[in-house]
Amino acid sequence: MTASFLENEILEQTSVLRRLLGRGVEEARELINPLKGRFHYILIAARGSSDNAARYAQYLFQIVNHIPVALATPSVFSVYRQPPQLEGALVLGISQSGKSPDVISVLDAARTQKRPTIAITNIPGSPLEASADFTLALDAGPELSVAATKTYTSSLAAIALISAALSGEKRRLDELARLPDQAEAALAFSLTLTARMERFRFMQHGAVIGRGYNYSTAFEIALKIKELTGVTTVPYSSADFLHGPVASLHQGYPLLAVAPSGVMYRDTAALIRKARRLGAELVVISDREEALGMAQLALPLAPGTPEWLSPIPAVIPGQVLAWQMALGRGLDPDHPRGLSKITETY
Amino acid sequence: MTASFLENEILEQTSVLRRLLGRGVEEARELINPLKGRFHYILIAARGSSDNAARYAQYLFQIVNHIPVALATPSVFSVYRQPPQLEGALVLGISQSGKSPDVISVLDAARTQKRPTIAITNIPGSPLEASADFTLALDAGPELSVAATKTYTSSLAAIALISAALSGEKRRLDELARLPDQAEAALAFSLTLTARMERFRFMQHGAVIGRGYNYSTAFEIALKIKELTGVTTVPYSSADFLHGPVASLHQGYPLLAVAPSGVMYRDTAALIRKARRLGAELVVISDREEALGMAQLALPLAPGTPEWLSPIPAVIPGQVLAWQMALGRGLDPDHPRGLSKITETY
Repeated sequence: MTASFLENEILEQTSVLRRLLGRGVEEARELINPLKGRFHYILIAARGSSDNAARYAQYLFQIVNHIPVALATPSVFSVYRQPPQLEGALVLGISQSGKSPDVISVLDAARTQKRPTIAITNIPGSPLEASADFTLALDAGPELSVAATKTYTSSLAAIALISAALSGEKRRLDELARLPDQAEAALAFSLTLTARMERFRFMQHGAVIGRGYNYSTAFEIALKIKELTGVTTVPYSSADFLHGPVASLHQGYPLLAVAPSGVMYRDTAALIRKARRLGAELVVISDREEALGMAQLALPLAPGTPEWLSPIPAVIPGQVLAWQMALGRGLDPDHPRGLSKITETY
Repeated sequence: MTASFLENEILEQTSVLRRLLGRGVEEARELINPLKGRFHYILIAARGSSDNAARYAQYLFQIVNHIPVALATPSVFSVYRQPPQLEGALVLGISQSGKSPDVISVLDAARTQKRPTIAITNIPGSPLEASADFTLALDAGPELSVAATKTYTSSLAAIALISAALSGEKRRLDELARLPDQAEAALAFSLTLTARMERFRFMQHGAVIGRGYNYSTAFEIALKIKELTGVTTVPYSSADFLHGPVASLHQGYPLLAVAPSGVMYRDTAALIRKARRLGAELVVISDREEALGMAQLALPLAPGTPEWLSPIPAVIPGQVLAWQMALGRGLDPDHPRGLSKITETY
């Protein structure tokens, strides 16, 4: 059997990260230094997987850089045609293809108002790049599967590079340098577990839990499962899950929890324990024995990843699970029903 | 049978709106006038139903007032304890109880930084009010059902009052004055249709669609159904639904669409038509014959509500449906399993 594009792209992720992190430190610094002090907050425009990357950026720029982040509602620009006054904003557009018209409409409005703009895209020369003052190219190679994988993890790495450059902290660059090995470990672990993933052949619904930095990871894994299998899993922060959805937890309810070490570990581990008592079916992505030990399917991460970078390795076992669930159901992972690669919605 | 708190609170909504709109025009003006020109963007902190009200505010302040809106990620303040620099921000906290600790933590950080703060709450003298420079009280009377209804619609009206005061446009006050009658009509229509709602006794999942101003309505109706019945329905904008989830539409798939007149009507109506062709089970909330005519259950709105105010009447038929679904399943609408009224999560 020929490997699918999806398989190849999942496997390529660590080399894409190595390439980006190799050249990106200097590029991010050159891009961000002229902008320092020129904005009070960051407005991010994105859709789909890139919107999940934006969610990561929302936590990262706030916690590490103390810069507030707003996620744009592109239809305000593209359908209502009422762009807000962007005084004080740095505007960041994220689009794998660089062709998403509503993301472009946000950057165009920002430039009209003479606000600084940055594009993160995989396609040099794309319309998004043309609408931006500065571009950080992912250089991930063509992504041919409809479900984004390598452009998602590399978008996160691009955001992390910008945040590290803004912070000026040397230790962050060292942590970034170790990231490809940690992503590779997460990938290698999950590839040894693909046979176990047959267990989810008949899963019909579920929830994905993550909080703080990994709220983004919960959204992205839920999206991969949805795109690749059609199965709806709902992403929640552990706080929101405890306020409501926990009521529907029951014996066998599938719950995937993203629980790497860090500030949010305790919180997510408490929810895992509660779900375990209620008999939920648990998939746990973690570097901690305690959390992994409560799972029916434990997807281990390598130890030592700082929380601010954990969403990059942590999403990979979720990508592998979604891919295996598609294969288990006899679905074509490269051409999910009803989806196209570029969203042309306004 | 004694009426539930939920029933009483659903029915009280129009009188609560009349009371708030009667005194609120002047209050909103007094509150916002001293703040004009003192901020570039609005940061909103909220949880649960109040977070859905914040989503409405996000569209309203951007489209009508051209002010960018960021939704706060309270855990950045309350768990990570890394409040961002809020230069240029007006900070708005929305909490029915005024006791949500993470919403309070955002306002406290803003005051420490000497940024202006506004609270919208139903409980005068609550900790949230103590943390804010200005408070707009909902004055909705005690809300005893766990599922918020009258505090949701009145929070939306409070937000609309602030937006109208900021705009200074007289016509908006006239439109607000007509709102209670339109809410009353939506309520009356849906109460005549409760017997038809037995149809959803065995519904196990579904999607709720809304876009632009009514993206908030989709979230809030999905939350009511979840809280009151435990059934997961996923809220989507019609744009996002077309990019992915549409692939899982099939014969009998339950889709609730919020499709009032306005800029987004065409878009949502197109999705309804597509869903109809695919054999979906349609519940439509609309003032348009065309959209209503495609539904298995048509929940009519009165004509004449401008789009910016449509989320207030449009959510009411969804509340009634969620309540009836709970009754149909023999569930206690006032005490859903596993939920408590005040979320104490950090």
